[in-house]
Amino acid sequence: MMTTRHSILAVTLTLLTGLLAVTLRGQAPHDPMDLVDTNGNIRRPPDYRDRYQLLGVYTVLDAKGNEMHYTYASPGAAEFYQKNGRFADGTVLIKEVLATTHARLTTGDAHWADSTKVWFVMMKDDKGRFPNNPLWGNGWGWALFKSDAPGTQVATDFKKDCLGCHIPAKDNDWIYVRGYPVLGAK
Amino acid sequence: MMTTRHSILAVTLTLLTGLLAVTLRGQAPHDPMDLVDTNGNIRRPPDYRDRYQLLGVYTVLDAKGNEMHYTYASPGAAEFYQKNGRFADGTVLIKEVLATTHARLTTGDAHWADSTKVWFVMMKDDKGRFPNNPLWGNGWGWALFKSDAPGTQVATDFKKDCLGCHIPAKDNDWIYVRGYPVLGAK
Repeated sequence: MMTTRHSILAVTLTLLTGLLAVTLRGQAPHDPMDLVDTNGNIRRPPDYRDRYQLLGVYTVLDAKGNEMHYTYASPGAAEFYQKNGRFADGTVLIKEVLATTHARLTTGDAHWADSTKVWFVMMKDDKGRFPNNPLWGNGWGWALFKSDAPGTQVATDFKKDCLGCHIPAKDNDWIYVRGYPVLGAK
Repeated sequence: MMTTRHSILAVTLTLLTGLLAVTLRGQAPHDPMDLVDTNGNIRRPPDYRDRYQLLGVYTVLDAKGNEMHYTYASPGAAEFYQKNGRFADGTVLIKEVLATTHARLTTGDAHWADSTKVWFVMMKDDKGRFPNNPLWGNGWGWALFKSDAPGTQVATDFKKDCLGCHIPAKDNDWIYVRGYPVLGAK
């Protein structure tokens, strides 16, 4: 009788533990430090289209070729921003810049994203993790990847390679938050 | 001794069960039928910006006012599409049509989403659930909500109110999949 009870308990424990493991694996916590080596080199998250949250899109019109800028955020980033009006330490943002194509469809002259040109990656850093690395500063880590070598970070100094385009967003911690409906920022 | 063992087991079971409950609640399965009443009337998902996945954006240029069309899909829809090349029965898609604003920023003439104009909602229906309801047909349930009354579905016949704009996408089950990078469709 005790043996039976113990067996039932043991089986239940095993089932529950297994189910929990499977469930947790499905939503493994986002650890941004997985993307950074000990020198502060940032990797491009490989699974951002599937696991990150697409916040929104800017369309940049240019006679030399229009672009769409898709910005993805690491899991939970938008929810934290909604509550706190800022990005949490460790938040990863990816701006994917794509060429566009277009066609006259039933709604008009419709433009949509085509091939990727570059990815900008930023990681929120409240702690000043890499003070001697010129790709870290102003509260963020900065990185740039180009589509001809998607695995290779090519920026050398965030002030020269990245910051210029972010000046208009300085008052929003360098991020163009107003274009992302889910953040509720204006 | 047995009592101690039983207590440890009982506490462990309680903890595991509780943790599992909390974990599962965080990702409650998407049941599209929560959005449909017995007559086939579709409600607008209230939490689509937070819980759905933003697939991508079309920008429609029009001298009378540009628009951005944000399309969100119910959880898991993109993953299923990637594997099967089609949307699963019950998939919910929301196309939010927004007015845009723009400014000359450092990257050029940047356009982004502003206020919502309308929401189109579609629910994939492989089963012909509501054959007598004129808002169901061609493998989907169809609905339209306008920003002046966001809770009120205003379409009366999908063939008159919805289908016209989808004709160019007929070969893709009426969906403009090529504009959504995460689907990997071309």
